[in-house]
Amino acid sequence: MMKFSISALKPKKLIAAAACLAVLSSPAIAADKVYKLKLAETWGANFPIFGDATKNMAKMAETMSNGRLQIRIDSSNKHKSPFGVFDMVRSGQYDMGHSASYYWKGKVPNTLFFTTMPFGMIAPEQYGWFYHGGGMELMEKVYGKFNLLSFPGGNTGNQMGGWFQTEIKSLEHLKGLKMRVPGFAGEVMAKLGVKPTNIPPGELYTALERRTIDALEWVGPSLDLRMGFHKIAPFYYTGWHEPSTELQFLVNKKVWAKLPADLQEILRVAMRTAAYDMYIQSTHASGENWAKMQTEFPNIKVKTFPTEVMDALRKANDDLLAEKAAENPLAKEILKSQADYMKNVRVWTEISDKAYLDSLSVN
Amino acid sequence: MMKFSISALKPKKLIAAAACLAVLSSPAIAADKVYKLKLAETWGANFPIFGDATKNMAKMAETMSNGRLQIRIDSSNKHKSPFGVFDMVRSGQYDMGHSASYYWKGKVPNTLFFTTMPFGMIAPEQYGWFYHGGGMELMEKVYGKFNLLSFPGGNTGNQMGGWFQTEIKSLEHLKGLKMRVPGFAGEVMAKLGVKPTNIPPGELYTALERRTIDALEWVGPSLDLRMGFHKIAPFYYTGWHEPSTELQFLVNKKVWAKLPADLQEILRVAMRTAAYDMYIQSTHASGENWAKMQTEFPNIKVKTFPTEVMDALRKANDDLLAEKAAENPLAKEILKSQADYMKNVRVWTEISDKAYLDSLSVN
Repeated sequence: MMKFSISALKPKKLIAAAACLAVLSSPAIAADKVYKLKLAETWGANFPIFGDATKNMAKMAETMSNGRLQIRIDSSNKHKSPFGVFDMVRSGQYDMGHSASYYWKGKVPNTLFFTTMPFGMIAPEQYGWFYHGGGMELMEKVYGKFNLLSFPGGNTGNQMGGWFQTEIKSLEHLKGLKMRVPGFAGEVMAKLGVKPTNIPPGELYTALERRTIDALEWVGPSLDLRMGFHKIAPFYYTGWHEPSTELQFLVNKKVWAKLPADLQEILRVAMRTAAYDMYIQSTHASGENWAKMQTEFPNIKVKTFPTEVMDALRKANDDLLAEKAAENPLAKEILKSQADYMKNVRVWTEISDKAYLDSLSVN
Repeated sequence: MMKFSISALKPKKLIAAAACLAVLSSPAIAADKVYKLKLAETWGANFPIFGDATKNMAKMAETMSNGRLQIRIDSSNKHKSPFGVFDMVRSGQYDMGHSASYYWKGKVPNTLFFTTMPFGMIAPEQYGWFYHGGGMELMEKVYGKFNLLSFPGGNTGNQMGGWFQTEIKSLEHLKGLKMRVPGFAGEVMAKLGVKPTNIPPGELYTALERRTIDALEWVGPSLDLRMGFHKIAPFYYTGWHEPSTELQFLVNKKVWAKLPADLQEILRVAMRTAAYDMYIQSTHASGENWAKMQTEFPNIKVKTFPTEVMDALRKANDDLLAEKAAENPLAKEILKSQADYMKNVRVWTEISDKAYLDSLSVN
């Protein structure tokens, strides 16, 4: 296929070229038109790491397409509806979204399973499940009927268990605690008497300060320190509940279908790369911030939940998984797929990275 | 910028369009010509996982560019020079290569540091170093003067310590052992009396069978089982020496400079994604094959080196790192950069994935 670039022509040639426009005018030209998409993200303006993932994706898409695919990003400051992303992309008000699948569990219960699961897979394991273990196909089964395509949108790595204003020394200390904790982890903690809630990122600090909530989990050192939570809730617990939180790109299916094949591939690859890149950026920022935390914020008290609490969480998790599997056949299929996959891949993780890290700790 | 697609025009319009060609003919058209690049890979034809990475990269590049960037892949069966990739890309005989940086240590000593290091970073940590910790810039310092650009080319994950015909029960058992083990690990093992060598992948099985070598390390369960090593060397040791082996894409700098900006970005992103994708494919295949190994190949004896050997390896490694750092200022700079980066990021790995995996083992 030959193509001509008008913009680089000299003025004289432009006149002649303009004369040719009428001749060349044909539907084929539509294949080279500029596609302008609008993306709504759950995050506020210039939100670090999560917002970098959307910017990285849009920039790659624009450069690779030589400007033929332009994606405008609206933060929640603009669209005012952080948890409306699913509906806005479904309806076509926005062409794309960047959010997290488990935010939609109240609307479509089976969306719960495509972000991360308590006691579940770590990031490389979960990417293995998405791309080689049937995860993408199952996600299509859940999202397809809503006129949506869903893609991995960036991994935070293993998340911390959250910030607490008081130390959790027993199961008793969790009873009645109001905590921001979304997804399945919220349901698990509810079994232990916690009152879980979800709150948009921009309102978290105020909610904690005004005691609308007593505790919250957000991400980990990569993002938490700049939120300031440590000033009002200094007990920082290690993680169990979100071992590999994967964000989500949503695309309106009709918009996708209208893109020519090369732009579809450019968009697919830009999203995929931006997701991986965010995992690595999160790893990097977590390392940097954890080091900073130890030296600059020595008052933060890093804790692990007592065995009594961990055992109860594990049991509540197992019970809830059984309940979910009984709710509908697709939930059962997804949970079985994840459990089967983890069974194989975890043995490998244990004999490779874990055995390696263990051997270094000993030495 | 407006563009016209000739190939989709109707015959009548094609004639008119042809008349316009003379008018439009200008250097700007060169920006839309088809670029055909040739890539030489170290691996044999249809080599699994490693070969999939080059095919995945080339396919993404071709689809995203709508056929304007075509990459022909020549395996070592074709070019007959598995370890000549560096020279062939440097000279322009090939435009690109797919290999591993540490294969060139005999030629350019500082290339050693860009694959993996014994007792070094695991995969997400090392990607963090490449993309956020100065690794890419240091790699440019090493490769730039040879008319080459080097990019991450796919990670195998943590590698196994290798296949041995006899059990290694003490340091004594390593003395005089002929082993295929490339990179820095070979030098470390040499300090313990091993005779290290590197052998092209296609000749490994025969070399082991004919006792040209007594032992070898290759990758891990993702690739080793189909090579058949277990039939003649059933002792399979856990890893210490290649915690995150990253392959390498090489690009001739002059070829890169001739690509228009959109194709440069398409190539950069295709290589980056193919590298990440290979890490995930390796994770997946390792899990699958490890499970298969336990059931289908029960005669394989999985072992860990005794403490005496591990301690000696660690000490030899530390001594060698000090020697390398003294050799030239750039080696010192690279090793310091890696050590500093690992110091921060490893603490995070330990409090996140490792603490999480530990807590599950206990429960």
